[in-house]
Amino acid sequence: MKISELSSASAVSVGTIKYYLREGLLPAGERTSRTTAEYGEEHLGRLRLIRALLEEGGLGIDGVRRVVAALDVPDPARLDLMATSQDALVAGVGRELPDDTRARAWLVRRGWPILPEDDPLPGRLEAAWSACERAGIDIDGSVMDRYADAVEQVARVDVASVPVRDPAAAVHRVVVGTVMIDPVLSALRLLAQRKVAWLEAGGDARPMGQG
Amino acid sequence: MKISELSSASAVSVGTIKYYLREGLLPAGERTSRTTAEYGEEHLGRLRLIRALLEEGGLGIDGVRRVVAALDVPDPARLDLMATSQDALVAGVGRELPDDTRARAWLVRRGWPILPEDDPLPGRLEAAWSACERAGIDIDGSVMDRYADAVEQVARVDVASVPVRDPAAAVHRVVVGTVMIDPVLSALRLLAQRKVAWLEAGGDARPMGQG
Repeated sequence: MKISELSSASAVSVGTIKYYLREGLLPAGERTSRTTAEYGEEHLGRLRLIRALLEEGGLGIDGVRRVVAALDVPDPARLDLMATSQDALVAGVGRELPDDTRARAWLVRRGWPILPEDDPLPGRLEAAWSACERAGIDIDGSVMDRYADAVEQVARVDVASVPVRDPAAAVHRVVVGTVMIDPVLSALRLLAQRKVAWLEAGGDARPMGQG
Repeated sequence: MKISELSSASAVSVGTIKYYLREGLLPAGERTSRTTAEYGEEHLGRLRLIRALLEEGGLGIDGVRRVVAALDVPDPARLDLMATSQDALVAGVGRELPDDTRARAWLVRRGWPILPEDDPLPGRLEAAWSACERAGIDIDGSVMDRYADAVEQVARVDVASVPVRDPAAAVHRVVVGTVMIDPVLSALRLLAQRKVAWLEAGGDARPMGQG
């Protein structure tokens, strides 16, 4: 299809599509003349993915670029896949990471693996942890443990959902799933808080907030 | 302290502090002359909270305004508290919610409470769920159930952490904790994915990604 048809099919303007092409988020179409190119279903799928990552996944253009770069270099090993995709998501955030001593100590005590060098994840955990404290939300090691127990269950679902026989599908699931499922978990958390608070209040038939 | 001292103590510029005052995020200081006012520790704490919500919590100015508005109207009942704070976080996002039939059906089957009218949470779940599908990540009802089981554990920690005797502290914990703990859970999820994938690969002493 022509770029104008790709625009109609995706509901993304031609100008925006050209911007994604320039930014390397969308691969070039097959050139049919000096000024025209032909686009296919893979471009339409990629456009839907870009819009979803930007609008719901909360990524910026740089984040989308890292995600699509990871998609374009699939690695068949599930373990390395996880590392590659995490690198794609975490790398280049361009923010100075804090002293991560406490997060590392907590991870070591818990027995969760830390990379021997340049591991960005302990710093990411420390940044979020200390931001909670700056906002007046104290999380001690035992509360962190209880959150981690719950999140480990989430991760088991994540890892079990990775297709084992199709590397490209596996990379897509890990990289895109990690970004796109966070908002699902966030919505579930609000609903589950309501359910738990409702149960605690006796779980009568009267819906909460209607008292 | 004067506004210049508040600026030094918080590392937030005088111009930004004045912007937060105009936007109603920060309560006015006690006026000491026609052009000067006196600020206290509560202003410093509020400034730290605003910066944490903006920088780590991922909220915009409107989101911060809703959060501080909820903080300023504490309600002692934990259940209503949960509702009020969720309203503060979800309301006024100004996005048209999708048809939430599927999310509602899933919630009903699961036995999670839905408000009888104007409940924004099923639509929020549906929006995140269908965005996953647009991005090529299929989540069927049974995978959603497994995620929900895990998130219910998160919510139990959330609800147990709400102080029962101090309404203002309780509102703070619910509203600010809901926003600020999401990035902690997100970092834990990446770490837990690594741990689960590492265990699955045999959990030998060789750290992942170093193969």
